[in-house]
Amino acid sequence: MIIDIHGHTNAPPSLYAYKAGLLASKGAHGKGNPGLTEEGMANTVKNHLANNLDKVGTDVQFLSPRPFQLMHSEKPEKIVHYWCEANNDAIAMSVKAAPDRYRGVAGLPQCAGVPITNVLEEIDRCMEMGFVGIMINPDPYEGGGTHSPGMGDEYWYPLYEKMVQLDIPALIHSASCKDPWDTYSNYSSATETRCIISMVSSGTFDVFPNLKIIVSHGGGAVPYQVGRYRAFFGRHFENSGGFDAQLKKFYFDTVLYNEEGLDLLFKIVGSDRCMFGTENPGTGSYRDPASGKMLDDLKPVIEGIETIGDSDRKNIFEDVARKVFPRAKI
Amino acid sequence: MIIDIHGHTNAPPSLYAYKAGLLASKGAHGKGNPGLTEEGMANTVKNHLANNLDKVGTDVQFLSPRPFQLMHSEKPEKIVHYWCEANNDAIAMSVKAAPDRYRGVAGLPQCAGVPITNVLEEIDRCMEMGFVGIMINPDPYEGGGTHSPGMGDEYWYPLYEKMVQLDIPALIHSASCKDPWDTYSNYSSATETRCIISMVSSGTFDVFPNLKIIVSHGGGAVPYQVGRYRAFFGRHFENSGGFDAQLKKFYFDTVLYNEEGLDLLFKIVGSDRCMFGTENPGTGSYRDPASGKMLDDLKPVIEGIETIGDSDRKNIFEDVARKVFPRAKI
Amino acid sequence: MIIDIHGHTNAPPSLYAYKAGLLASKGAHGKGNPGLTEEGMANTVKNHLANNLDKVGTDVQFLSPRPFQLMHSEKPEKIVHYWCEANNDAIAMSVKAAPDRYRGVAGLPQCAGVPITNVLEEIDRCMEMGFVGIMINPDPYEGGGTHSPGMGDEYWYPLYEKMVQLDIPALIHSASCKDPWDTYSNYSSATETRCIISMVSSGTFDVFPNLKIIVSHGGGAVPYQVGRYRAFFGRHFENSGGFDAQLKKFYFDTVLYNEEGLDLLFKIVGSDRCMFGTENPGTGSYRDPASGKMLDDLKPVIEGIETIGDSDRKNIFEDVARKVFPRAKI
Amino acid sequence: MIIDIHGHTNAPPSLYAYKAGLLASKGAHGKGNPGLTEEGMANTVKNHLANNLDKVGTDVQFLSPRPFQLMHSEKPEKIVHYWCEANNDAIAMSVKAAPDRYRGVAGLPQCAGVPITNVLEEIDRCMEMGFVGIMINPDPYEGGGTHSPGMGDEYWYPLYEKMVQLDIPALIHSASCKDPWDTYSNYSSATETRCIISMVSSGTFDVFPNLKIIVSHGGGAVPYQVGRYRAFFGRHFENSGGFDAQLKKFYFDTVLYNEEGLDLLFKIVGSDRCMFGTENPGTGSYRDPASGKMLDDLKPVIEGIETIGDSDRKNIFEDVARKVFPRAKI
Amino acid sequence: MIIDIHGHTNAPPSLYAYKAGLLASKGAHGKGNPGLTEEGMANTVKNHLANNLDKVGTDVQFLSPRPFQLMHSEKPEKIVHYWCEANNDAIAMSVKAAPDRYRGVAGLPQCAGVPITNVLEEIDRCMEMGFVGIMINPDPYEGGGTHSPGMGDEYWYPLYEKMVQLDIPALIHSASCKDPWDTYSNYSSATETRCIISMVSSGTFDVFPNLKIIVSHGGGAVPYQVGRYRAFFGRHFENSGGFDAQLKKFYFDTVLYNEEGLDLLFKIVGSDRCMFGTENPGTGSYRDPASGKMLDDLKPVIEGIETIGDSDRKNIFEDVARKVFPRAKI
Amino acid sequence: MIIDIHGHTNAPPSLYAYKAGLLASKGAHGKGNPGLTEEGMANTVKNHLANNLDKVGTDVQFLSPRPFQLMHSEKPEKIVHYWCEANNDAIAMSVKAAPDRYRGVAGLPQCAGVPITNVLEEIDRCMEMGFVGIMINPDPYEGGGTHSPGMGDEYWYPLYEKMVQLDIPALIHSASCKDPWDTYSNYSSATETRCIISMVSSGTFDVFPNLKIIVSHGGGAVPYQVGRYRAFFGRHFENSGGFDAQLKKFYFDTVLYNEEGLDLLFKIVGSDRCMFGTENPGTGSYRDPASGKMLDDLKPVIEGIETIGDSDRKNIFEDVARKVFPRAKI
Repeated sequence: MIIDIHGHTNAPPSLYAYKAGLLASKGAHGKGNPGLTEEGMANTVKNHLANNLDKVGTDVQFLSPRPFQLMHSEKPEKIVHYWCEANNDAIAMSVKAAPDRYRGVAGLPQCAGVPITNVLEEIDRCMEMGFVGIMINPDPYEGGGTHSPGMGDEYWYPLYEKMVQLDIPALIHSASCKDPWDTYSNYSSATETRCIISMVSSGTFDVFPNLKIIVSHGGGAVPYQVGRYRAFFGRHFENSGGFDAQLKKFYFDTVLYNEEGLDLLFKIVGSDRCMFGTENPGTGSYRDPASGKMLDDLKPVIEGIETIGDSDRKNIFEDVARKVFPRAKI
Repeated sequence: MIIDIHGHTNAPPSLYAYKAGLLASKGAHGKGNPGLTEEGMANTVKNHLANNLDKVGTDVQFLSPRPFQLMHSEKPEKIVHYWCEANNDAIAMSVKAAPDRYRGVAGLPQCAGVPITNVLEEIDRCMEMGFVGIMINPDPYEGGGTHSPGMGDEYWYPLYEKMVQLDIPALIHSASCKDPWDTYSNYSSATETRCIISMVSSGTFDVFPNLKIIVSHGGGAVPYQVGRYRAFFGRHFENSGGFDAQLKKFYFDTVLYNEEGLDLLFKIVGSDRCMFGTENPGTGSYRDPASGKMLDDLKPVIEGIETIGDSDRKNIFEDVARKVFPRAKI
Repeated sequence: MIIDIHGHTNAPPSLYAYKAGLLASKGAHGKGNPGLTEEGMANTVKNHLANNLDKVGTDVQFLSPRPFQLMHSEKPEKIVHYWCEANNDAIAMSVKAAPDRYRGVAGLPQCAGVPITNVLEEIDRCMEMGFVGIMINPDPYEGGGTHSPGMGDEYWYPLYEKMVQLDIPALIHSASCKDPWDTYSNYSSATETRCIISMVSSGTFDVFPNLKIIVSHGGGAVPYQVGRYRAFFGRHFENSGGFDAQLKKFYFDTVLYNEEGLDLLFKIVGSDRCMFGTENPGTGSYRDPASGKMLDDLKPVIEGIETIGDSDRKNIFEDVARKVFPRAKI
Repeated sequence: MIIDIHGHTNAPPSLYAYKAGLLASKGAHGKGNPGLTEEGMANTVKNHLANNLDKVGTDVQFLSPRPFQLMHSEKPEKIVHYWCEANNDAIAMSVKAAPDRYRGVAGLPQCAGVPITNVLEEIDRCMEMGFVGIMINPDPYEGGGTHSPGMGDEYWYPLYEKMVQLDIPALIHSASCKDPWDTYSNYSSATETRCIISMVSSGTFDVFPNLKIIVSHGGGAVPYQVGRYRAFFGRHFENSGGFDAQLKKFYFDTVLYNEEGLDLLFKIVGSDRCMFGTENPGTGSYRDPASGKMLDDLKPVIEGIETIGDSDRKNIFEDVARKVFPRAKI
Repeated sequence: MIIDIHGHTNAPPSLYAYKAGLLASKGAHGKGNPGLTEEGMANTVKNHLANNLDKVGTDVQFLSPRPFQLMHSEKPEKIVHYWCEANNDAIAMSVKAAPDRYRGVAGLPQCAGVPITNVLEEIDRCMEMGFVGIMINPDPYEGGGTHSPGMGDEYWYPLYEKMVQLDIPALIHSASCKDPWDTYSNYSSATETRCIISMVSSGTFDVFPNLKIIVSHGGGAVPYQVGRYRAFFGRHFENSGGFDAQLKKFYFDTVLYNEEGLDLLFKIVGSDRCMFGTENPGTGSYRDPASGKMLDDLKPVIEGIETIGDSDRKNIFEDVARKVFPRAKI
Repeated sequence: MIIDIHGHTNAPPSLYAYKAGLLASKGAHGKGNPGLTEEGMANTVKNHLANNLDKVGTDVQFLSPRPFQLMHSEKPEKIVHYWCEANNDAIAMSVKAAPDRYRGVAGLPQCAGVPITNVLEEIDRCMEMGFVGIMINPDPYEGGGTHSPGMGDEYWYPLYEKMVQLDIPALIHSASCKDPWDTYSNYSSATETRCIISMVSSGTFDVFPNLKIIVSHGGGAVPYQVGRYRAFFGRHFENSGGFDAQLKKFYFDTVLYNEEGLDLLFKIVGSDRCMFGTENPGTGSYRDPASGKMLDDLKPVIEGIETIGDSDRKNIFEDVARKVFPRAKI
């Protein structure tokens, strides 16, 4: 079975037109209505299943809101909540339309500069709708220049408590990036790197040993730069396995669109910490002119990596996801 | 011959005590004197050669100022200049003390929020002292929250013109990081990633085809995440070799303290774009308890990588450096 | 003939989904494509003509971008330009689909904090597409707290020169409003009031006697509060007709959804300065439960006002618009 | 009987020289003394009664501090308190000098950015001196760019509780305006509009059904633009009388210096919500060159409006004020 | 003859009431009128001459605007100009009323954050009215937290050029102080100290050898702390007389209300750099309960200092002023 | 016996190199180690005793951290703590090396913008190490533009309570100064002046009658400008001895490098409030070319002042220090 834990809502344009309206009105019209109909969604789902799951052999895809659309740094806060709820509702509609093929991963209505507890109610709502995990944006300021508390900071503790209590994992994924000289795509890598280093520095897993954190995109730069962190943290963790032991407290997805990167990831963190993910359709949905293959068609790539074996592949494709997402019941 | 292009000034404490004084007085006492003596430096050089070059088989090391000490975001500007000059002077003293073993790479007195032309005079001064390259900090605000112009922005053009005119390469390396939840060590990786993406997006090499940019630490996250960028830039560069062709316009050093990372780097960018670098002594100067080896002792690591051949190794250890740094005359 | 000078683009959701994408990517994907097809637009236009023009007896409607969607305060600037151009393109498609029933009024890519000259190129582009006027946002900061130069300030002169040179009028209409305790709807009224007072104070029409400024929504609060301004400006304009003479240098539309307001407007400024406008469909598209009538169905309202005569009505419904918009050629 | 509820302190220059001194010293000299003497005030009162009450037939005028002088945004807070107290003291002296002709309406020492509870003590002090109402500035930042909590926000609740408890009404009137391209005179209209919309949106009268709010200057732009608000709020209040039912929870004064505006006001809100007010002497104290009449001589204007009857006029001139200001005991 | 070079406008309250009105209206009413009459001023002058000159034996007093009232940090700029002009006009009226007893020292309409050239026109206007010098505020931000360019900075050069060209001296005197934990009175001392140190550090007198700078209040803290500066600047000026030689390029007034301070001042800078000044009436107008004397009655104090002789006293009381203020023609 | 209460740590360069490293790493490496050895310190102490105590006849010197190095405004807070602790440790090492010749005065890890209670733990630590007093920086923002609470503000009360409870005095001394047009040297004088005025204004000694405050550098500008303050505070303290009685609640040191200043100080505040201090070596360590004497060699200067007698000298040189610093046990 192939479980792709990193997919995003695929909704008709009216969902995003709804977002544009919220930003224009600043919520003056109230929550309003994203205009999603069961019929419209059924059509979208049908196309999505055919083109983005069946065609590449994915059995089940986990859907979270499209991260760079989450607008966590916008004000007033109510439009962030309206918008996040609309996304989670759209995901719930997809899951309802194809319950064997999808699972929901809730976006959070994180708002820059306010307590993280403001998101807990939406988590409860989503869990009641059958969602299996959440997605955390490490920087709700979206690169705007104000520094967000690191993922190891106590700011996040109420959320971590909730996660442990409900036994739900979180996918780490930043949203947009306001730095005019950066891009959301670089920024997700930078924030994933920061997330790992912050949590290792702070000993977060000592406080929350059962916390499940999945770092997107193969962990940003960390596995590639792992030697640097082995040295940096060497003294601190010398008697407990060094930085590598810390790194193995995280999970990672395989949203890396090149074989060399995947190979390195598996070598550094081990297949028992990796889950298949493609973000299909998304950034990787590009047909390489040389090979003629879609870059986000990662199943054959992983199947072709010779340095791992069948049990590794089973870990990656299904077993780790099953363990990490107990609510998925797959 | 082993040429290590990424080493930093190794000076006695009085150099850094001088910096502390500049920050305390804000330059009220004038430039003052870092108190470096030929005798004191000779001793430092002797130890450095013995422990950090001879012991690991390095023939020549290129010295630039220790980047995280450069305090580019401090005010008033004059103390940034004083301090940068003192560093370059210390490097010149080292080179003078052991002219066969060192080359100088100039730090730049970059100041947050002012034109880049303010650094040109110091470049001239260093070239007259026999330096062979420069080091650029992509973010003189040092992560303070104000966005620095991307390396593809026209802000940098006067510097690029100077580099082309003098035929000197630049090592890209950020300085400190003021984000209380980040570290200078992550930040260098993030800014190296941004540097590559900004210059590719802006087509900087179309404007300056002879510009030589060396991205430190194996290019941040880019080689590892290269698939993402192949997709992201796919359409734009489809007829000119895709993102890989762009990536091969940059140079990279080998300051990656793990074999898997180095292996990936060579595969993605090719040995003809790579130069040996260790930053020894520096972050990597940590003895791995398991192997008993220093993590920054990279020569045996590179010699042990099986996916490259002798000509690759010659590229990495000496030939690319010779080509990129014509002033080094090695 | 009934000419409604105040209508806005009526596009399918994909246009606004495009805006959401620009805000999410901050333009990292380039301009991209709003996904408007001639077929999709034809359908939208057909519905719009049937429901919003034919049903209420409007012969021709002038279309400008939906103001509160213009996001002038967003960064980077390029997304403001992309988005404005997409809006003007959508309007051009509507006009092309029904050339007898529509005219285009160009939105401007105004960006907070940059010179107004940055919009001139888009004006030229729109004029080449046959547009007949422009719409100006008096506050590109969108109520964010930074004060925009008043409409009488020299900041705007290059735009006024362009308008006079091309003989095109401008509709004054603010965009969104970032003040969390205000709304875009109040804010347009406040900025229209400010616009009139700023231009009267500065004597803008002395510098640009042929400038044509149309203040939306019946001039904000000015006609209602006119006595206050008569007193305030009394001394300054005592020998030239007082404030009323100044007020008659502006034009006004009739986007006031109550009879008493319209009656007052015509009494204070005269029918020769008024143009029929409804913003249909828009805020006023609400069916009054008592009367059962749509509030923006203003034609019968104006026809029912007894204090004006037939020539006044002809002024309001068509003649003033013909004079003010010579490029409309109606 | 003619009761003018909107008059302001008319004090000798020494009161304002005192203000200038407070701003210059920032309160370093302590509270000091505004130098008001019973004799000096008696003279001022005598002139005021003769010229601004007797001449126009006003029997009683309610005096509040001259709003644009209140300097609520200045720091340190103590000078705002000193100054407000001096104003209220001056009013108390006037009332004492002519107890049949004046009533006091207390200015509040509102300070930007601090809790509204800081004004409660001054309310108590003024009530002990026999004052009959208070005046609220909806924006103590005085248009400086920081957004003040809307009048419907819970920020104001302690003040509303106090008002209900003491049964005192409040006149809504902004102070100065720091926006260099706006004026205090426009700004009062804008903030009055915002006040109504904020309180309607928030359902403030549901929480405080006995709260008495008097919106100055005929309610800013609201009665003129009422159709827009009928549409905007239509859905929300469809079953409870629409926006008009909400609007009738406010009171209004007649400080509109033109007949058409007054006529519209009475039609929209009804005479049972209106109170005579002139702000004489003030902005309207201008002799219209055409008519030869003072613009703030509103009694004959109201008497001449044909669309209202005698009971309406009685409402406006005295009855509503009697009901709203029970402490006035007139 | 006794010449007191440090006195300030003594105007009736209407002048300061005018200031309060400017701050309230932000200049919306135009320049308006401070309401000064020849009659009113004649009365003020008569009292002033009797109480503040004749009674203490002053023959001529130089009048400048009361510094802490100058509101240089207020916006918009036009009210700073209006207010400064009104002050200078009031001074001109005083001088006209008693031409033998007064001279005018012009206040400057300095505005925070704009070029100093904006004050030059007012200097010309005052010189045409017969003024003899100017007063400079070293910090037009008035301690608000934004750093003003030091008096040695090139920012001030256009003003210094004007001063040299017209041969007019300047009195250094700060205005108000916005730091809530400081006072205008401390702040003048701090800024006078900064002025001297900045100009010495920058070598301003090397650029403008004929510039005449009079530091108020006996030079702030400098003469008292002179040893510190002798050491601090020792090396820089060792061959040109040390810091003392630099200090003697400035002039000082005697506005020090204690004998020990005056004694120290004369010893450190010499009587040939000192001018009699009292600021009477002002801060020092306090009757010491012990001695029964007014603290600003400095003539007998200076006459009683035994460490100076008659020629020193002549210097202080008249000769230096005659030399420094050639336009005074006394 | 000669007790010099105002000396500063004299450590080898490695201490300041440690500071430079903290600023570069922002504490990412943890507290680390300043690299002070007993041997290294013994050498430094030996030289210091010989050159800076024995040579000028000082028996005991009190050592506090070098103030301008304290970097209180830097972030993150932890590096301020690390650095302050290292300084206090260095002082403790000096005292341990020469217990008869030194006493420790603790620097405080004050951090801009956080509660003063954060320093209390370090006070306890230092008292346990035998320190005898503390040093307070009145502006932890170091002149950066944010206003620090005045020394009379309740912000400081927890610190004052601690001081009274432990019976330890505090030396008032600012640190660096970020104003690019000011210097740390002027700034200490300005903040000392502010300290006195703030505490007198606030009546701090009424709340803490046993509080012991020693104002460095002879009290900034206050004794020199004392007449101004006598007048300014005259009315407030008329019945309790005027400003002079207030001033005598403070203590002062003699770090004034000129005889006239010292003479004035003793006259104004009396020898019973003065303690010998030299800051040797420091700013005053300059040999006057004329006299050939070191400016900070103040013992002969004080011995030469004729206006004081032997008991005054005993006060200054030893008795006051003994009384104020009971923990010194000298």
